[in-house]
Amino acid sequence: MLTLYDFNGAPSPRRAKMFLAEKGLEFKNIQVDIRSNEQMGEAYRKINPRCTVPALVVESGEVLTENSEIAAYLEAQYPDKPLLGSTPIEKALIAKWNWRAEFDGLMAIAEALRNASKSMKDRALPGPRNVKQIPELAERGQERIAWFFEDINEHLKENKYIAGENYSVADITTTICVDFAKWVKAAPLETQTALLEWHDRMKERPSYRV
Amino acid sequence: MLTLYDFNGAPSPRRAKMFLAEKGLEFKNIQVDIRSNEQMGEAYRKINPRCTVPALVVESGEVLTENSEIAAYLEAQYPDKPLLGSTPIEKALIAKWNWRAEFDGLMAIAEALRNASKSMKDRALPGPRNVKQIPELAERGQERIAWFFEDINEHLKENKYIAGENYSVADITTTICVDFAKWVKAAPLETQTALLEWHDRMKERPSYRV
Repeated sequence: MLTLYDFNGAPSPRRAKMFLAEKGLEFKNIQVDIRSNEQMGEAYRKINPRCTVPALVVESGEVLTENSEIAAYLEAQYPDKPLLGSTPIEKALIAKWNWRAEFDGLMAIAEALRNASKSMKDRALPGPRNVKQIPELAERGQERIAWFFEDINEHLKENKYIAGENYSVADITTTICVDFAKWVKAAPLETQTALLEWHDRMKERPSYRV
Repeated sequence: MLTLYDFNGAPSPRRAKMFLAEKGLEFKNIQVDIRSNEQMGEAYRKINPRCTVPALVVESGEVLTENSEIAAYLEAQYPDKPLLGSTPIEKALIAKWNWRAEFDGLMAIAEALRNASKSMKDRALPGPRNVKQIPELAERGQERIAWFFEDINEHLKENKYIAGENYSVADITTTICVDFAKWVKAAPLETQTALLEWHDRMKERPSYRV
């Protein structure tokens, strides 16, 4: 049985939950209250010394703690309904667009949030060490979110899904970007209709409601 | 025939070259002089609108521009000598450690370099858009590099390679971290002997000299 350490509503564990849902996999869900900093406590540190959620405990007892790690494991262990691609070119395109969603999207949003939020003072980066905020980085994050939406909207004018013809992990990561951006009051422009229409299609998938 | 747009000495294209070398693949090498900003010019923009090296043109004519993309393609197209793992757990561990080397290592070094170097004014991020420097981010980058070396040294006390028993793309990325860190005058401490011994072993591989 798979066990997921999770916090409902947080973007990182939602990536893992969407991946599990698209694969049709069941799992035990254990909530870690990150609002009260439970992830920094001794009990959770024993499960994941990096003090982050998600953490996925797999059948063999290994604990997987990064979304890239969880995706690689689940795709190899449960190859049905591939989310990382089938052909070499598909795998390449999915890796590219997922990386861009992570670097241009998620990181920009995390920078905008973690460097501006009063409740995240000294938590400008996730992990076991404290990191002080850099207000200029929050501003830069906002600018980069707008660029990301602009680029993805252009790309979606000619692509059904983020990495082309098929739904993939790149759609999961980009869905998280659009939803997580609301946390810093950022959203696609009304004129970015290709992006907005794609996001509406994503909302119709059962995996969206995890 | 594979064609790689490259700049000798730059860390990002060296990741691709090391991957190609470990796979034993031959390719045509075209140099793009990033010292004179050739990657920003119209000619190269037609090959890679993101204005970054590497770019790998594959047999079918597709242009792959991110290292994650190049690795995914080459591993699927040339599965001999696997660099992304064989079993689900191996694939997971490699994805994890590669991600950490990218996020905790390469990004920290890039932040330290791009936010402090006079020649990189307004080039604080790669890509087609100009981004101004944030001096505080350069300082934070230096601190994070030290943390990364500390963490990897601890990890290598109990692991032969970065992701465990076998050489993988995580060793490539971490090798690049140690070498690239010199650009910002950062290096493992003399006391971090597990990391230093591992790096010495990496230097003995033919792929190191690309």
